[in-house]
Amino acid sequence: MQERPKNALIVGLGLIGGSYAKGLRLAGYEIGAITRSRSTIDYALEHGIIDSGTTEVRRDYVSRFDTIIFCLYPHVLLEWLEQYQDFIKPGALLTDVTGVKVSVVYPVQKMLRPDLEFIGAHPMAGREVYGVENSDPAIFKGANYIVTPTGANTPEAVRECRRIGEILGFGRIAELTPERHDEMIGFLSQLTHCIAVSLMTCKDSAHLAEYTGDSFRDLTRIARINETMWSELFLCNREELLSQMDLFMQQFGRLRDALAGSDRKTMEDIMRLSTDRRKLFDK
Amino acid sequence: MQERPKNALIVGLGLIGGSYAKGLRLAGYEIGAITRSRSTIDYALEHGIIDSGTTEVRRDYVSRFDTIIFCLYPHVLLEWLEQYQDFIKPGALLTDVTGVKVSVVYPVQKMLRPDLEFIGAHPMAGREVYGVENSDPAIFKGANYIVTPTGANTPEAVRECRRIGEILGFGRIAELTPERHDEMIGFLSQLTHCIAVSLMTCKDSAHLAEYTGDSFRDLTRIARINETMWSELFLCNREELLSQMDLFMQQFGRLRDALAGSDRKTMEDIMRLSTDRRKLFDK
Repeated sequence: MQERPKNALIVGLGLIGGSYAKGLRLAGYEIGAITRSRSTIDYALEHGIIDSGTTEVRRDYVSRFDTIIFCLYPHVLLEWLEQYQDFIKPGALLTDVTGVKVSVVYPVQKMLRPDLEFIGAHPMAGREVYGVENSDPAIFKGANYIVTPTGANTPEAVRECRRIGEILGFGRIAELTPERHDEMIGFLSQLTHCIAVSLMTCKDSAHLAEYTGDSFRDLTRIARINETMWSELFLCNREELLSQMDLFMQQFGRLRDALAGSDRKTMEDIMRLSTDRRKLFDK
Repeated sequence: MQERPKNALIVGLGLIGGSYAKGLRLAGYEIGAITRSRSTIDYALEHGIIDSGTTEVRRDYVSRFDTIIFCLYPHVLLEWLEQYQDFIKPGALLTDVTGVKVSVVYPVQKMLRPDLEFIGAHPMAGREVYGVENSDPAIFKGANYIVTPTGANTPEAVRECRRIGEILGFGRIAELTPERHDEMIGFLSQLTHCIAVSLMTCKDSAHLAEYTGDSFRDLTRIARINETMWSELFLCNREELLSQMDLFMQQFGRLRDALAGSDRKTMEDIMRLSTDRRKLFDK
């Protein structure tokens, strides 16, 4: 079996796109980039993050690449493909880094030219800073990389997509259906951000900052949040996240009702279960 | 003004009691201890944590001390004083380390002999392990120590109680009314534990452990919890904690409803407020 040529186009050169570019380029890939801002391209060229780059989407440039990695907001990714998929080289492999999958993978696979293949991937890594200036493939070290193949994907695409994760140095590479991915992300990541944001905003707690111990700090670390990106990701996973939020509210309500009814036994039962379950998550 | 003699009786020799004993003894205090288990006394004597100790509450022993520090569960503290306050030396100063204040300070001050004085204190420090074997005054370094005086307290008692906090090396010593203390603790500590426990128990998440990133780990670190102690502390602060839980549920519900209604603007507004407020809490 022939190996896919080692070149890739990164569309959207931010923190994740830049980190992909650096990591793949170090592994010998020729890296191109398309992104909105000229200064981002200039920075990336000057710092050896990419081999070439442009702010315009041109047929002669796009059609040079055998792999395209989309690092865009979900709705921007869909719009981009609607507008420009004609430019893409026949047989190219397309993948992404989006944090939600059902609402991206199926619509993309449905709209795509039959001679192209899209396979979803989610690098579960990030930082609290943004932009290509902060990009660094070291953020992938030890992190999870989830490939989300569907019935529309070939074994070759799955292998190729996993290979990108291996090159980038992820700690663990796994495969999940888009549905299971979104359930997992809805619970572990989106629900936790909803909780942190709600705790941080439920009252004006400025006067309490001086008394804060580790508990409150731990629970609100992720309450500093990019509101545009996370609102979009929440809305893309709306049904799943709503059901996770309802599950949490129900259990929180159980504990509340036990407290209201001075039902010590139920409170202790819940806490004992909590302690038991948490043990599994110790690193 | 005469200084209070440097001796203290620790009642309840666990993690906190033992850490008080060590810290005060290093500062030249003669330290006595009363605790339930003989092996705890033996351990503390062997390791130079206390000068003397007993498992029996005897008049001739209790009456030797000018300061008594109660490191007991709230209901045990109240029972102890009901039963044994006659043994206490006239003029002695009594303090505690309990994590709730209204339900302890006022009942104690009401029941106490008029020649004794009780002043509440809360060392906001702890570890995820228990027992005198793990005691270490280093846990107080940088932590908050809250004194909760009421109209029944003298300036001398406040000074003396603060001095204990200084000797133990706390990072910050503050005074709050019992009511403000319980509101603060209800929000920063008890509510956060309720959230962590509810998140940890709302579904069987064992199959997700392998995908867990920092968010879920951060939010559930405190979900390993001593169910007996925390249930008692929650019940002692029931009304306050219920109102904090309701406040949180209301805000969580707002975010949920915004998501259900695809109301992106409200979601972004909440997240923007969250980011702004969290900045104050950065260390």
